[in-house]
Amino acid sequence: MLTDAEIAELAPQTPDWMIVERDGERRLERAFRFQDFASALTFANAIGGAAEEQGHHPALLVEWGKVTVTWWTHAIGGLHRNDFVMAARTDKLYEQAPGRKA
Amino acid sequence: MLTDAEIAELAPQTPDWMIVERDGERRLERAFRFQDFASALTFANAIGGAAEEQGHHPALLVEWGKVTVTWWTHAIGGLHRNDFVMAARTDKLYEQAPGRKA
Repeated sequence: MLTDAEIAELAPQTPDWMIVERDGERRLERAFRFQDFASALTFANAIGGAAEEQGHHPALLVEWGKVTVTWWTHAIGGLHRNDFVMAARTDKLYEQAPGRKA
Repeated sequence: MLTDAEIAELAPQTPDWMIVERDGERRLERAFRFQDFASALTFANAIGGAAEEQGHHPALLVEWGKVTVTWWTHAIGGLHRNDFVMAARTDKLYEQAPGRKA
């Protein structure tokens, strides 16, 4: 698990992500906006593809016009460096996502 | 919006769904279990297809091995008869879903 100092060092690389605490575990969370439900679901699938590649899986809350993505590492009860890597990768996927609402 | 009496009449048709209250609105919610993340995401897509057909959209929380589905009608601030119809339809989709964990 990352130390507070390591998190403070990594966080500026993913400035749009909030560090939230849920069930006693720190997590990275960001909401992404879309023009409709279908575009939101398409983005969720793109993240799912990246997750399968890495063998590391987020929580994806898909709603009309919005996907809330949460990365954390349950096995260690908090944040791993890989969660920041996946958050940055999610940002990149959003840049290319169809139907995004900038 | 359905009255309490109407909800009491409809609820037995969707016995696996909980009626939860969130943001002051009553919602129907059920968690569905799967063998892995990919199967969960495939199920979310199946629900998304049904949602597009009906022009009525749920919240879908996709996690490893689990999809939590929530139906409600934001425009009326609660539950409409159609939410129960879509909950029943979601149950049917689960019966045919690949990778489900019964």
